[in-house]
Amino acid sequence: MTTATPAKTKAYEELTSLLRDAAVLHSMQATLAWDQETMMPPGGAPLRAEQLETLAGMVHTKKTDPRIGELIAACEDDSEVMGDARRSANVREIRRDYELATKLPGSLVGELARASSLGMEAWKDARSKSDFAIFLPWLQKTVDLNRRKAECYGVPSWGAELYDALMDEYEPKMTAARTQEIFRPLREFTVKLVERVKASKAPAGVDEVHTAIPIEKQKEFSRRVLEAFGFDFRCGRLDESAHPFCEGAGPGDVRLTNRYSEKAWLDQLSSASHEGGHGLYEQGLPKAEYFGQPLGDAISLGIHESQSRMWENQIARSRGFWEWAIGVAKDVMGAPVAGMSADQVFRAANVVEPSFIRVEADEVTYNLHIMLRFDLERAMIAGDLKPKDLPGIWNERMKKDLGLTVPDDRRGCLQDVHWSMGAIGYFATYTFGNLYSAQFWEAMARAIPDRDDQIRRGEFGAILAWLREHIHGVGRQYSAGELCERVTGKPLASEPLMRHLEAKVESVYG
Amino acid sequence: MTTATPAKTKAYEELTSLLRDAAVLHSMQATLAWDQETMMPPGGAPLRAEQLETLAGMVHTKKTDPRIGELIAACEDDSEVMGDARRSANVREIRRDYELATKLPGSLVGELARASSLGMEAWKDARSKSDFAIFLPWLQKTVDLNRRKAECYGVPSWGAELYDALMDEYEPKMTAARTQEIFRPLREFTVKLVERVKASKAPAGVDEVHTAIPIEKQKEFSRRVLEAFGFDFRCGRLDESAHPFCEGAGPGDVRLTNRYSEKAWLDQLSSASHEGGHGLYEQGLPKAEYFGQPLGDAISLGIHESQSRMWENQIARSRGFWEWAIGVAKDVMGAPVAGMSADQVFRAANVVEPSFIRVEADEVTYNLHIMLRFDLERAMIAGDLKPKDLPGIWNERMKKDLGLTVPDDRRGCLQDVHWSMGAIGYFATYTFGNLYSAQFWEAMARAIPDRDDQIRRGEFGAILAWLREHIHGVGRQYSAGELCERVTGKPLASEPLMRHLEAKVESVYG
Repeated sequence: MTTATPAKTKAYEELTSLLRDAAVLHSMQATLAWDQETMMPPGGAPLRAEQLETLAGMVHTKKTDPRIGELIAACEDDSEVMGDARRSANVREIRRDYELATKLPGSLVGELARASSLGMEAWKDARSKSDFAIFLPWLQKTVDLNRRKAECYGVPSWGAELYDALMDEYEPKMTAARTQEIFRPLREFTVKLVERVKASKAPAGVDEVHTAIPIEKQKEFSRRVLEAFGFDFRCGRLDESAHPFCEGAGPGDVRLTNRYSEKAWLDQLSSASHEGGHGLYEQGLPKAEYFGQPLGDAISLGIHESQSRMWENQIARSRGFWEWAIGVAKDVMGAPVAGMSADQVFRAANVVEPSFIRVEADEVTYNLHIMLRFDLERAMIAGDLKPKDLPGIWNERMKKDLGLTVPDDRRGCLQDVHWSMGAIGYFATYTFGNLYSAQFWEAMARAIPDRDDQIRRGEFGAILAWLREHIHGVGRQYSAGELCERVTGKPLASEPLMRHLEAKVESVYG
Repeated sequence: MTTATPAKTKAYEELTSLLRDAAVLHSMQATLAWDQETMMPPGGAPLRAEQLETLAGMVHTKKTDPRIGELIAACEDDSEVMGDARRSANVREIRRDYELATKLPGSLVGELARASSLGMEAWKDARSKSDFAIFLPWLQKTVDLNRRKAECYGVPSWGAELYDALMDEYEPKMTAARTQEIFRPLREFTVKLVERVKASKAPAGVDEVHTAIPIEKQKEFSRRVLEAFGFDFRCGRLDESAHPFCEGAGPGDVRLTNRYSEKAWLDQLSSASHEGGHGLYEQGLPKAEYFGQPLGDAISLGIHESQSRMWENQIARSRGFWEWAIGVAKDVMGAPVAGMSADQVFRAANVVEPSFIRVEADEVTYNLHIMLRFDLERAMIAGDLKPKDLPGIWNERMKKDLGLTVPDDRRGCLQDVHWSMGAIGYFATYTFGNLYSAQFWEAMARAIPDRDDQIRRGEFGAILAWLREHIHGVGRQYSAGELCERVTGKPLASEPLMRHLEAKVESVYG
């Protein structure tokens, strides 16, 4: 039996073809940006900046071409296109992207770009000197420009405040109010959990785990683990850079990076698993069919982060994982790890300890760092917190939530790059990642009852297949919230993550 | 005293600015092509092809923009521009490039591109099966298309045959007749020199030199040598690829590649020196000031090759070089080379032995391979040699010049990629490189009387400074022939190379 493929309309074809052209240009940006962080000799920096600026301009021109607006309208009027679930989802998301790209006046885009570039320089200077006064005027400018940006976008129909317009760029359809609703119980719970950890005895044998391992061996260990996870090295790489990242340039080319130091073999495995999770998502997106179209893209930063966090935390920080991985570690790294037990490494990978720096925080305290940033940036956009008062409020909150006295702004409100780049509305997506990850993980457990045994045997195929089917393969067909309900049967909530963290602390600290 | 810079005219500024835009796009092609050969996972190939095709189209559009033609004409009418030696040279060369780029009809450009791509596939198949019949129709097509191309360009005013139009693309202003005039004595001389070598005793201790060395050590050795030569690693890299090459993407970013096998530590040093020579030329071109303009570009393939050959042959195959380099080799590679003498390695680096494959040929017999190809392709373009008769003529000539009986076409007329890519007029530039290199080397000796002592001490600064001043720094201000006369006082001739080869054979074979 043959089923005739319904004829696509001309407008839809032209539209997706124009977007593919833009995506090819964008993929060059991705590869050249990767090269800049991994391979480029320092002398190549000025030319690289010129290349990337040229490409950014070309991509922007392609994406804001008025012809795209006409074609979207034509598709929206075409019942054949709109009657098809996937194509209509594509048109809906193309409309969204086009409006985001065209709503800002060119003058504001330019001001944002300049403020980001100069603000980052000022921030680097301020951080190195731990001098908030240097950064303050740029923070003020970022808040002002972001408010103007939010006004151009307008408060979304599902939102209630200007901040919602900013958040929508990173986590579509999410709102500050809904975020607060989810964060409030998580914060209360986490503060109590940290208290409980503080009152417990430190886990045994942890210091011995942080022993020196030659970096080439560490790399081989990570590679073996990523191969077992299912990362396809025929369509990807793993290299070194100052900060780990994942760059999905396009179909068939997804590159991970990691950083190494001799005693941090366990940390590098965590970041390899984290970036590997991003990479598995990129490799699982249906880009062969939909490159350049929303259906081939990631849903949101939160969903992307859920994939990295799941491989990093639910998997590579689990006891079962280490029952398998300790064998691989001994096989690859030999003598220095020969005397370690799976349990011992598992405990070392899960030590909870309040600290000043977000990117160094453990799985439990991490979300407290995020919730602090979310509350403070939201208050700055609302006008309830003046940028000049940021350090004081920051330090107060660190004391209250983590029991720490911030010694200087370098280890306080000057630690992150995001605000200097003009990114407000972004931070919460890190905790969304943790929340989605925990909620997906529980849904997956119902579908794969022997999952934990599989992990103990180093078998990750069923896990990856489930992720491919339910999350990776759908691209942007649904919003993050819709996806969550489809996959887990419930809207995003804080309970699954709280259950996960509670069980983790229980198994490490008793 | 202050000298006022003469105001540039608007047309000149607009012209050079448009060319810079094209160069930025072209530099992306260069970096992405480098990535393809060194880093890209195999799965990235289809996307990479799409990226490179997109960029090639954009570069072509920029370079053939009719606005460029108008601006060139405006500059040519501007006495202020034309009165300035460097700017007028720039305009002259921009005119040349524009005419080359616009003289071919789009249909022919398309046919050439298709024939090149399909011809290469057929050639690979033919070579692997050693079956000339598979490649013959494509060779015929290449000859026909190149003849049509030459007719579009027209026989140049300084030339006499269609082939001259093809040669002009690779070695501007050179002609087949002039080439023949230089090649004839070189061929006679080389055939006799090879006879003499055959009649001599093999140099002593050569086999022992080809010992296994760990590849990481070989890489370090090459890097140390290239650093001593003056290759700037802050503005460059050295990586691995299937075939060694040098990619000068633009100012501050020049990348070399090499290939390695355990016993070929001496060969890899030769190719590192060769690519390093190309790289030093690229780093010495005045791209900071003239990026995208002819004044920032290499003069010709022959001059580019002269730089690679000089560092490879005149320097890294000299006895004096090994007096210094043997110490570096022992320092880096230790035990396996500890018992070798400078003299022994020098002899091993200079063994002369007729062989079938051009890219494996020694410094002496290499030019016989080139002169054969030059004669045969020139005859094919003139219609004096039918493609179907190529294998017979090839094998006859190999017998006559090198005394070898070609066993199959894989080791005969199917060995090179050039014709399959549609490149006719290219081969001779390899021997031009050897000729220019020897002639420059003699001129340099007059300017740096203690040069050989400097080399013996591992000092290459004066050599590089001389090359920078006389060759690298001038870009395309002169034609290759003019440069040769300015630098050496004489037109290109075969005697300096013959003297160099004679002395080399003398010192190795006695």
